[in-house]
Amino acid sequence: MSGNTFGRLFRVTTFGESHGVGMGCIIDGCPPGLTLSEADIQPDLDRRRPGRSEATSPRNEADQVEIRSGVFEGATTGTPIGLWIANQDQRSGDYSEVRDKIRPSHADYTYLQKYGRRDYRGGGRASARETVMRVAAGAVARKYLAERCGVEVRARLAGFGGLSLDAPDWGAVNQNEFFSADPGRLDELRGRLAELRDAGDSVGALVEIEALGAPVGLGEPVFDKLDAALAAALMGINAVKAVEIGEGFRAASMRGSEYRDEIGTEGFQGNTAGGTLGGISSGQPIVARIALKPTSSIRTPGRTLNTGGEPVEISVQGRHDPCVGIRAVPVAEAMVALVLMDMLLRQRGQNADVVPPMPPLSGERR
Amino acid sequence: MSGNTFGRLFRVTTFGESHGVGMGCIIDGCPPGLTLSEADIQPDLDRRRPGRSEATSPRNEADQVEIRSGVFEGATTGTPIGLWIANQDQRSGDYSEVRDKIRPSHADYTYLQKYGRRDYRGGGRASARETVMRVAAGAVARKYLAERCGVEVRARLAGFGGLSLDAPDWGAVNQNEFFSADPGRLDELRGRLAELRDAGDSVGALVEIEALGAPVGLGEPVFDKLDAALAAALMGINAVKAVEIGEGFRAASMRGSEYRDEIGTEGFQGNTAGGTLGGISSGQPIVARIALKPTSSIRTPGRTLNTGGEPVEISVQGRHDPCVGIRAVPVAEAMVALVLMDMLLRQRGQNADVVPPMPPLSGERR
Amino acid sequence: MSGNTFGRLFRVTTFGESHGVGMGCIIDGCPPGLTLSEADIQPDLDRRRPGRSEATSPRNEADQVEIRSGVFEGATTGTPIGLWIANQDQRSGDYSEVRDKIRPSHADYTYLQKYGRRDYRGGGRASARETVMRVAAGAVARKYLAERCGVEVRARLAGFGGLSLDAPDWGAVNQNEFFSADPGRLDELRGRLAELRDAGDSVGALVEIEALGAPVGLGEPVFDKLDAALAAALMGINAVKAVEIGEGFRAASMRGSEYRDEIGTEGFQGNTAGGTLGGISSGQPIVARIALKPTSSIRTPGRTLNTGGEPVEISVQGRHDPCVGIRAVPVAEAMVALVLMDMLLRQRGQNADVVPPMPPLSGERR
Amino acid sequence: MSGNTFGRLFRVTTFGESHGVGMGCIIDGCPPGLTLSEADIQPDLDRRRPGRSEATSPRNEADQVEIRSGVFEGATTGTPIGLWIANQDQRSGDYSEVRDKIRPSHADYTYLQKYGRRDYRGGGRASARETVMRVAAGAVARKYLAERCGVEVRARLAGFGGLSLDAPDWGAVNQNEFFSADPGRLDELRGRLAELRDAGDSVGALVEIEALGAPVGLGEPVFDKLDAALAAALMGINAVKAVEIGEGFRAASMRGSEYRDEIGTEGFQGNTAGGTLGGISSGQPIVARIALKPTSSIRTPGRTLNTGGEPVEISVQGRHDPCVGIRAVPVAEAMVALVLMDMLLRQRGQNADVVPPMPPLSGERR
Repeated sequence: MSGNTFGRLFRVTTFGESHGVGMGCIIDGCPPGLTLSEADIQPDLDRRRPGRSEATSPRNEADQVEIRSGVFEGATTGTPIGLWIANQDQRSGDYSEVRDKIRPSHADYTYLQKYGRRDYRGGGRASARETVMRVAAGAVARKYLAERCGVEVRARLAGFGGLSLDAPDWGAVNQNEFFSADPGRLDELRGRLAELRDAGDSVGALVEIEALGAPVGLGEPVFDKLDAALAAALMGINAVKAVEIGEGFRAASMRGSEYRDEIGTEGFQGNTAGGTLGGISSGQPIVARIALKPTSSIRTPGRTLNTGGEPVEISVQGRHDPCVGIRAVPVAEAMVALVLMDMLLRQRGQNADVVPPMPPLSGERR
Repeated sequence: MSGNTFGRLFRVTTFGESHGVGMGCIIDGCPPGLTLSEADIQPDLDRRRPGRSEATSPRNEADQVEIRSGVFEGATTGTPIGLWIANQDQRSGDYSEVRDKIRPSHADYTYLQKYGRRDYRGGGRASARETVMRVAAGAVARKYLAERCGVEVRARLAGFGGLSLDAPDWGAVNQNEFFSADPGRLDELRGRLAELRDAGDSVGALVEIEALGAPVGLGEPVFDKLDAALAAALMGINAVKAVEIGEGFRAASMRGSEYRDEIGTEGFQGNTAGGTLGGISSGQPIVARIALKPTSSIRTPGRTLNTGGEPVEISVQGRHDPCVGIRAVPVAEAMVALVLMDMLLRQRGQNADVVPPMPPLSGERR
Repeated sequence: MSGNTFGRLFRVTTFGESHGVGMGCIIDGCPPGLTLSEADIQPDLDRRRPGRSEATSPRNEADQVEIRSGVFEGATTGTPIGLWIANQDQRSGDYSEVRDKIRPSHADYTYLQKYGRRDYRGGGRASARETVMRVAAGAVARKYLAERCGVEVRARLAGFGGLSLDAPDWGAVNQNEFFSADPGRLDELRGRLAELRDAGDSVGALVEIEALGAPVGLGEPVFDKLDAALAAALMGINAVKAVEIGEGFRAASMRGSEYRDEIGTEGFQGNTAGGTLGGISSGQPIVARIALKPTSSIRTPGRTLNTGGEPVEISVQGRHDPCVGIRAVPVAEAMVALVLMDMLLRQRGQNADVVPPMPPLSGERR
Repeated sequence: MSGNTFGRLFRVTTFGESHGVGMGCIIDGCPPGLTLSEADIQPDLDRRRPGRSEATSPRNEADQVEIRSGVFEGATTGTPIGLWIANQDQRSGDYSEVRDKIRPSHADYTYLQKYGRRDYRGGGRASARETVMRVAAGAVARKYLAERCGVEVRARLAGFGGLSLDAPDWGAVNQNEFFSADPGRLDELRGRLAELRDAGDSVGALVEIEALGAPVGLGEPVFDKLDAALAAALMGINAVKAVEIGEGFRAASMRGSEYRDEIGTEGFQGNTAGGTLGGISSGQPIVARIALKPTSSIRTPGRTLNTGGEPVEISVQGRHDPCVGIRAVPVAEAMVALVLMDMLLRQRGQNADVVPPMPPLSGERR
């Protein structure tokens, strides 16, 4: 109940703090017989890890994952998979500044009041470093989904500050340090980034996630609709403050005759709903967008209190991402993969012997 | 796991179909000693029920709730509370049209393929009628939160189609059939509604929800952040396709120095985050906005297939809301109340003996 | 968390008090396509209901079950199944005696201290009447298990007070009011029962439960072993104070060479483990035995306190079973059916695509 | 759902195999502010570890625990506690014998059929080595229970083969290698043990567990009664095949007038129920007994099949406990501590604001 487990049948439980000895997780419920080694997980970790470019935090972590259980003779056994990544560059130096000051728009105040104490080193458990294990676990889910169901999960940076990045060149995403599908605007992005670094400021972002090839039937009405599960998974990522599926907020301004996704003999005519109908996957591409707030750790001085209640000035030094939205791209992919994997197991738990009455409608059109 | 239970400690499980004999739920985990009778629940049901005005479906339901267990000598006993509402106006007539046709943007296709069969009468379990029990259960949560913690949960229609309703006159909300806080634009709303009815069309909506007075400490990092729980609760309401908290999507375009919520001796200076920090309630007002798609049941003819895969024309007759967003207002309040209640019990389960080190910051400013 | 839900994927949540308006439950997660009507459930309820003979409480309840949702056109739809049984003979008369006195060996004291209050009418939620919904839900599980997997669950009274009932004539069980497989001793049982009624006393019992035909692979190591799930299910029945599986307590005195269940080409040579190996069903008959304490509601006067802490004499009048173990027979069957059903769904959720490497060993030998 | 998590609010998830790199667990939901270091956990691990004496397996493991997260400045923070113990003496040598043969009364056959494969090295996940993390997590629960509630959990070997060990000298338990409270019979135990070693055989055992000082109100009716939770916790320990609480199986032969636990002004007169009434703790000592089957890994040759289905002879070599019941003593204590801790958090989640109407009855009498 304490919030460190994700999923019901494919269950991921994580632990570890930003400046502790390392980060770990247990995946319980993974189907047996999936071929798996560290090499299947490492590429996603490498995409997420800091220090890769100017675009992200200079913290230097190899993020080398170790599988500690649950894999035998090269394949999963059905028993819990333990994963471990040692922290390397945690720099446990002088914390007197962060120990005593309540950083605005951070979790300092709420952790302190909820638990009566907090690990103030590098944000402790509230650090974005926590997401490393989401990516590791997500890589396992993603592999199963790809191999057994042909599902592909992918994401891209869709907005950087007020800048909209809408070119749909998915092939470009892993070719640049921004995960942008709009390669023509890379220089513009790099320029803005340099300006933010100079100013000691940060900026918010938009990320779009797609899952292609998900089978019909994932999602559990009424409270655990696929939309609800995706919303929770994505809103639970650090700094995410909005989630939309399909047309999302635009749907609020549309008319029924416009939103309605007609069906022809060749299949669905559009995909306004973003791949779910009644909370259940329809076989169409699943499409979600999220908004991330700007990093709150900035050098620009600001006003706050110390833990004694006295007013102080704060200027957060340290190695922070000027735009946390960039590294959120692989994290968002991982969370969507975890949702789909869990829903797949839930679906076959209840409905394994169902024979669908209709042939699947084509859903590949967006 | 099948999705009909909401909450971990304050657990609500619902059953019933649109055109079945009635709707019911079980609330398990309610603290004992809460004075409770049907009269505490009925007002919220009355706000939600159809047939109240031109603005909503003409289906006529008294929605009279009965408490069937869990209350003794006028107060809850700590044992499960059974609630029941008989369906009255279900009109189980001729279903041949809906039985054989796949209504576009409805759950027909996905239920059929997931379960191999579906209750096609009035949408069965996928009908918005399902939300009646959310409101009933939410009323119990809301009463506890109000009496023991001074929490108030309220919501309003914030957009109707493309029309923005931004006047913050909360006192007006329960005085009009739209739950609008913008009473100066009621004639405009009524005019648009009449036009939609004539056209046989529908429109989407925005709803804003606020919770005032929630204590610091609700929400469970990392996966069950308060934001994540709210997102799941709200996105699980029929027709909701987007959720944002605080500045939400606007945060994606903001800079850190602008978004950052500074703290002075008089408390928080703003509330960009919408009442949560690090996924934990901060004592500030909790503010969320949701978008609802337009009702897909419209008279305007459209193309689809029948269950045999042949192309057919469809024009959905029946008693439908031209804007489901209106009646979603009390439903959204209920879901937020259920989240806060559950998180309150979870918080005291783990942290009952914590003494917060700081006095609470003032959070009343929005 | 509050304890009124049983199961993880096949989930049963119950409500209702002994002297309230009725008893109800919701079954969530039942696979769709199971043909189901009240007539499938009623026979098990009839076996459990009081007033059938001298052997049980004279409380007269028809226990007529109604299906209120989840079944359409004669089959389950995959959505929650609501069940309801009205209480008829609850006799809400004068409760002044039970209201103020703490009945020894009853739940009065603990409910009072845990919840601060209690429904003292007929034992409220702590009454054995609560088990009626276990039997109703168990009948649904049992039907699925029988039709899809060929599983048979059966139980019998194996001890009455110190009297051992060991003849294995299963065909006789439903032919007598004691559910005894030892028809030669019925006169002896009837004589003891009459003696207990005259004395205003009661007696404990043993019940043996078997499940035949359960597939290999049910049960989840390490904490949710099939043994553990069965133990929880059976120990959670009112008055049960001991559970053993296979040789059970006798195993404590055995040597490994004696206990070991060798395997030949014709299959397992015995069944000392009672159908589980490593916490997972082996395909052998699953065999459990439970002990029930004697009914604590007896006329024989005893000493206790009233709620004011003053010593008083108590003699519990009313309509009580002189041996609750008798009516526990169908309840125990139901609980075992619920465990197996839940484990079956869990098994296929994780392992649906596993191909067992060996042909199943014959396990029918006991 | 896959069975490697124990508890609802105080949640323990374990991983690791007998001959893998080590064993780990995550404790989620531990209240913050508990002073904790490895030194609080190690003593219980030392009591359980093999190689201490002739009475247990000669496998030599230091079982040195490391806390990897969740503790900061000497106290728990409320975030997940990661624990790790490296395996040292796993001897990954020649497994050809165990790889191909189905060991009788072991989990080989059921793991193979359930998962399609198995880690055959030293029993993999089904090994008793798995219990090491139960003891580690239990030590944390036990410390909280002792410090905050004054609860003491203790256990003793109560039977060894057919030998009954009934002297109640609790002070002797940790003074001998058998955890026996009957020090006068140690020579007899040692003699039997030597005889078993010579014969290459093993023997079953009885263990008795007591919890003193548990507050009134723990346990959740109806399905999660304290009895049910204890039964699941204890029956889930490797080799346990029977559980009883209070009089247990003896209750089946008793009369109500004899079993009934009368109450005087000085409190309860006995404790036939073993500390629970209606499934809720009464403040009396909680008393449970379990039976463990004899170790199935014995040198005495026996018949079985290989994985190809051919009959073979088997004689299990290796470093096995001649009586697994001995080392189960600290494991059983740990499981009872975990149950009580979880129930304590669940109780205060729902009932934190309850004021018990009566002063607690004295319950110290057994």
